[in-house]
Amino acid sequence: MQHRLTIKAGQKTTEGFADGNATILEALRVLGQAGPEAPCGGAGLCGKCRVLATGSLSAPDERERAVLSAVELASGIRLACRARIQGEVGIEMNEAGEASILSTGIAVEAKLDPPAFALSFKVPAPELETQTDDETRFLSCLESALAVRKGGSAPADRNGGADTRIGKPKLAILASLPGLLRKDGGLLTAVVAGNEVVSVRSGNGSSAQYGVGVDIGTTTVVCYLLDLLTGKRLGVRSGLNAQRGFGADVISRIQHTIEKPEGLSVLQGLVSGQISGLVRDLAADAGIDPADIASVCIAGNSTMLHLLAGVAPAAIASAPFIPGFTGRLTLRAAELGLDSTPNAAAILLPSVSGYVGADIVAGIMAVGMADRDERALFIDIGTNGEMAFGGKSGLLCCSTAAGPAFEGAVMERGSGGIGGAVDSVWVSGGSIGYSTIGSLPAIGLCGSGIIDALAAFLDLGLIDDTGRILDADEAGSLAPETAALRGESESGVRLYVDRERDLYLSQADVREAQLAKAAMAAGIDVLAKRAGVSLADIDRVYLAGGFGSFIDSASAVRIGLLPAEVGDRIVVAGNTSGAGAAACCLSAARLAECDRVRAACSYVELSASAEFNDAYIERMMFPEGKRVPEAT
Amino acid sequence: MQHRLTIKAGQKTTEGFADGNATILEALRVLGQAGPEAPCGGAGLCGKCRVLATGSLSAPDERERAVLSAVELASGIRLACRARIQGEVGIEMNEAGEASILSTGIAVEAKLDPPAFALSFKVPAPELETQTDDETRFLSCLESALAVRKGGSAPADRNGGADTRIGKPKLAILASLPGLLRKDGGLLTAVVAGNEVVSVRSGNGSSAQYGVGVDIGTTTVVCYLLDLLTGKRLGVRSGLNAQRGFGADVISRIQHTIEKPEGLSVLQGLVSGQISGLVRDLAADAGIDPADIASVCIAGNSTMLHLLAGVAPAAIASAPFIPGFTGRLTLRAAELGLDSTPNAAAILLPSVSGYVGADIVAGIMAVGMADRDERALFIDIGTNGEMAFGGKSGLLCCSTAAGPAFEGAVMERGSGGIGGAVDSVWVSGGSIGYSTIGSLPAIGLCGSGIIDALAAFLDLGLIDDTGRILDADEAGSLAPETAALRGESESGVRLYVDRERDLYLSQADVREAQLAKAAMAAGIDVLAKRAGVSLADIDRVYLAGGFGSFIDSASAVRIGLLPAEVGDRIVVAGNTSGAGAAACCLSAARLAECDRVRAACSYVELSASAEFNDAYIERMMFPEGKRVPEAT
Repeated sequence: MQHRLTIKAGQKTTEGFADGNATILEALRVLGQAGPEAPCGGAGLCGKCRVLATGSLSAPDERERAVLSAVELASGIRLACRARIQGEVGIEMNEAGEASILSTGIAVEAKLDPPAFALSFKVPAPELETQTDDETRFLSCLESALAVRKGGSAPADRNGGADTRIGKPKLAILASLPGLLRKDGGLLTAVVAGNEVVSVRSGNGSSAQYGVGVDIGTTTVVCYLLDLLTGKRLGVRSGLNAQRGFGADVISRIQHTIEKPEGLSVLQGLVSGQISGLVRDLAADAGIDPADIASVCIAGNSTMLHLLAGVAPAAIASAPFIPGFTGRLTLRAAELGLDSTPNAAAILLPSVSGYVGADIVAGIMAVGMADRDERALFIDIGTNGEMAFGGKSGLLCCSTAAGPAFEGAVMERGSGGIGGAVDSVWVSGGSIGYSTIGSLPAIGLCGSGIIDALAAFLDLGLIDDTGRILDADEAGSLAPETAALRGESESGVRLYVDRERDLYLSQADVREAQLAKAAMAAGIDVLAKRAGVSLADIDRVYLAGGFGSFIDSASAVRIGLLPAEVGDRIVVAGNTSGAGAAACCLSAARLAECDRVRAACSYVELSASAEFNDAYIERMMFPEGKRVPEAT
Repeated sequence: MQHRLTIKAGQKTTEGFADGNATILEALRVLGQAGPEAPCGGAGLCGKCRVLATGSLSAPDERERAVLSAVELASGIRLACRARIQGEVGIEMNEAGEASILSTGIAVEAKLDPPAFALSFKVPAPELETQTDDETRFLSCLESALAVRKGGSAPADRNGGADTRIGKPKLAILASLPGLLRKDGGLLTAVVAGNEVVSVRSGNGSSAQYGVGVDIGTTTVVCYLLDLLTGKRLGVRSGLNAQRGFGADVISRIQHTIEKPEGLSVLQGLVSGQISGLVRDLAADAGIDPADIASVCIAGNSTMLHLLAGVAPAAIASAPFIPGFTGRLTLRAAELGLDSTPNAAAILLPSVSGYVGADIVAGIMAVGMADRDERALFIDIGTNGEMAFGGKSGLLCCSTAAGPAFEGAVMERGSGGIGGAVDSVWVSGGSIGYSTIGSLPAIGLCGSGIIDALAAFLDLGLIDDTGRILDADEAGSLAPETAALRGESESGVRLYVDRERDLYLSQADVREAQLAKAAMAAGIDVLAKRAGVSLADIDRVYLAGGFGSFIDSASAVRIGLLPAEVGDRIVVAGNTSGAGAAACCLSAARLAECDRVRAACSYVELSASAEFNDAYIERMMFPEGKRVPEAT
C-alpha cells in the first residue's frame, strides 16, 4: 500500500507516495529526493538523519530513543533511517547542501514585518507658489507612503501619525535630494528603519527587496539571504572568519588592535569585506540585484560587532571587560564598509556585555525561552562558552572562559565547520566510525567531531575519568581493535580517529577540551544555583553553536560538558545567532524582542567568583556512563 | 557745573564727569574716550555720531529732528554733536573700531540659555559586577550633568526626564568613547545641542566656553565671538566673502556649481575655510582657545547656506527656485569643514524659501517684529532685496531681484563695506562732503555711500527725476561748485564724489541703482497691498543690511528706495542677520523663535506677478523733495 508523503525541504515543498513500512530514508531515495545525510548507513548510530515528521509513523524504536532526547521526540523529531511510514506523513528537513541555521525542532516564528525596508514613491515637482523645499516634500511623500504601507491612508500633513513620522535626515541624504528629486520624475526608493531614513536612491527599488541575516562568529561568518516580501529564505553562504589570521580567539584579535595602530581598521576591513563578498555571492546565487537588499541584520559576539563597527574593543580584553556599546545600532551599510549593499540599513543587534554578545541575545530570542514560563538553559558553545538561564520571569547570563577548544581551532588536528571536517564520530564494533561535512575526504575535526571523538574514546575506555589517555600497557588490556586506535609520536600519545589521514586527539587536545567542558559545566552550576533551581528541575536545554554541524547532545553529556540530569531535555538548536539575525530581518517584533531580552538579562561575572572556581574544579573529571548503548 | 557721565562702549563701562551744556561729543573728547565718528565735524549733517543717551539732555534740536527718525528719537537715539549735557547722563555706543552688529535702537534681548554648549563631567570607571558598557555610562553621566545644569538634581536613572534625555550618539562618537573614558580619569567634555550629543573630547572644557554667530552674506562674511557664560560679545571679525571671485551675486555662484563638477566643493571649501580663519582670528584676538568654542550659529541667505552645507543650490537659480532644505540643521562643525572648531555644534538657522533665507528669518527674530502687535516692514537691502511685512498675527515675505547694486559690487567705483569705503555722503555748500569707513583714504563707494551720493546728487539737481544725469548745458545753469561735480569720460557722463580719487557714479550706475530701488519699492507696495494695509499705516520699518556701515534712512527715502510715507518710522537696524545669529548662540528661546518666524512667514512669489510688474514700473522714477533741509 502506498501512502502520501509531503516533503518540505527548506522553502521547497514536494509531494509523492511511499511504500507502506518503508523508512523515511528509503522513501526519500525512491522519490529521488536528496534526503538527510546518513553517514552511519542507517544504523541509528550517528543521529545525523534527524527529520521533523508528522502523521502515521512507527513508534520510536530503541535506537531513536537512545539517540534523540525526550524533547526532540516530543517535538516530532525522528531518525529518517528508523521511522517507518504507516500512513500519510509530512516531513520537514533542511535543504540539502546548506549549513543549517535552524536545526530540527527550533523554528523562529516571525510575523512578516521587516524593521528596515525599501519604500518607493514619487515626489511631485515643486510649485512656484508654495515654494516647498526638497527636504520637506521628500519627507511628506515618504511619510505618506509609510502610512499607506502601514495600512492607513496618507495623512493630510506631516503631523499625521507619530508612528509614520520620520526624523531629520542626515546631511549626506539632504545633499543628495536636489539631484534625486529632479531625476526619473522624482521616483525614489528610500530605505527606512524605524523613524530613520537610512538611504535614498533614484527609481523604483521596492518591488523586489531582500534582507541578509549575518552571524559573525569568531571562527565562521554566515549570511542568510531572505526575501522581505515573502519571508522566504533564498540562500546561505558562509566562510571562515577572514580575521582568523590574527588569532583564533577574540583576545588575539583584540590584542592586534592594541598592538598595531592600524589594527582596528585592518580587522574592520577584513570582516566588512568578507560580509560584502558573501552578500555579493548570495545575490549572484539567487539571481538578484544586490541593490535590492534593504537590510542587513547582524549578530555576533561583542568583540566581532566592535570590530565591524570600528569601535575599539581593547577594554573587553582585560578586567572589568567593558564593551564600548551594547545597544542596538542602526547605520547605513556603507558606514560599515559593506560595499555590496551600501544603501541597506545595517542593524547591529544588541548585546548584554563584553562576553554575552548579540549572538546570545539573538539566540535567546530565536529559541523563544524569554517568552515561556520555563526554567530553560541556553548554551552557546563557540569560541567562548556563553550561557543564559531563566525564562519569562527573567534571565541570568554568564560567559565562561571555555576557550576555542570546541571550535577546533586550538586542537592539533582541529578544523572549522567546513567541508571535509569530521563532524560526527561514533563507536562501531570496538573501533570508531566517522562522517565528514559534505562527505568529503576528512581534513580535520570540527567541534562536534571533537566532542563525539572524546565521548567515543571515553566509551571505549581509552581515556580514564581524569582525562589521561591510557598508557600502552593499559590499552593492551582492551580489545585489539580498540587498542589499535592508540598511537604515539614525538610530541606524545594520541588517539586516532583516522590513522591514515593522521586525524587524532592528542593528550594536550584532551586536556584542552577537559578544561573547556569543566568551565562550561561550572557555569551551568553557578547559574542554576543563583537561580535557586536544581539541575534536575531544568525544563529544557538549548544547545546553540556556530559549528558547521551540530553537537550531539549525548556526547556532550558523556564528556560532562552538560550535566547528566538534563540529558533527555536537550534541544540541539544550531546557529541560533544566525537564525535570530535572519528573523530580525523579517520582523520588527523579533528585533524589539532582542531589546527586551537584553534588558531582561542579568549578567553574572564569573571571573572573580569563588563559587565558580569551586564548581570548576568539581567539574574537571570526566563523568561515568556510556554515551549510547551499543547497537544490538 | 559738572555732571556724572556713564559711558557704555561695547562690553566696557566707564564713568566720568562732564561740564554742563557740553555736547556729548565734547564731553567724550575731554574724557579721552574714543567717541563715535563725526566726519562732518559736528554740523549735524552726516548723522554718524548717533548714540543711545538717557538722562538730563537738551531737547533734540532742528538738525537732530531732521536726521533722526521719530522712532529713533523716541528710543533715545541722539546725535552726540548736538545733544547737550544738563544733568546726569548715560551713554551707550558701539565699541570704536568694530563693525556694528546692533545699530542704535535695536538690541536683541536674550535670556542666557545657549542652545548648544559644552558640558564637562566625569564618567566613573566601570565595574566588573555591573558590566555597564561605555555608551550607557557616558549617556547616564551626561544626562545627570544635564539635569544638574538645568537646575534639577541628577535623575536616578536614564528615564529621569524627557528634557534631559540624549539621543543615540553617532557611530563616530561611539567609536571615540572607549579611548576617551580611559583617559584623564574619565573626565570628558561633551558638546550638546538639544537632545543630541555633537562631540566629545577629553578633559574639562566647559569652565570657559564660547559661541560664534556667523552671517554669511553674498558679499561679506561676519563672525561675532560671544562668551556663552556671560553673554558678552568679545569680538567681531569680517571679510569679503571668499567666493566673490566666482561672481558678485548668488546666481553666478550657483552657475559655477552647475558648470563645474567640482564647483560645489570648491565654493564649500572657500566659505568654510573663511569662517574657520575668522574664528581662529577671533580666538587669537580674545586670547581664548578655539577648542573652547562650543557653538557656531550661522545665518545667511539660502544659497550661502546650501554652499556651506555642500547641498547643491542649482534648483534655486531657476523657476520655481526651490531650495534643498529650509529647516534648521544641527551638525558637528567638522562636517562643514570648520576646522578651527571641529567639535563645536554648527547650527544653520532656518530659512523660508530659496530667496528668503536664514538671514531674513534671523533678522525678523532680531528686531522682534513677530512678537509685537504692529504692522512692521522688515527690509534687507543686500545682494537681493528681501522683505517681510506683518507682526504677531502673521508675516508675508518676498524677495525682489534688486541685484547687487547696493552692495557696491556692480558699480564702476563700488566697494564692499571695508576700510576706506565711502559710507556717507552729504550736501555741503552746493558741493558734497563724505566720510569713509575707518577714516581711511577713500577707495570706492559701499552701499550706504551709493545711496547717500544718489540722494545728494538728486538734491543738488544733477540727476533729474527720470534718473538722467544733466547734460553740460543744463548743469551750467546750476551753481558752479555743483556743476563742477559733473564730468565726462569716454564711457559717458559721471558725477564725482571725489574727482581727485576718481570716485564717481556713472550714468550706468545710476540706472542700476534706479532699477534696484524700483524693485524694492514695488515689493513693499505688493506686500502692503496683500496685507491690506496702506503705506501710511505702517508702524515701523526695520532697515537691515549687510553693509559695512548703515544706510541713511533719509537718503533711502530721497531716492525712493523706501516710500516717503514711512520716512519718519525707519529704524536702521544694521546687520540683523549677524545679530540674530549671535543671539541664537546665546539663547535657545531665540533659536526656537527663528523656527516660529519661519513657520509664520507666508512667501509671496513676485517673479510671475503682474501686480509686481505694475508697481515696479510705477516706482521707476525718482521722487521729489530734498533729503535734509540745508543747515541754517
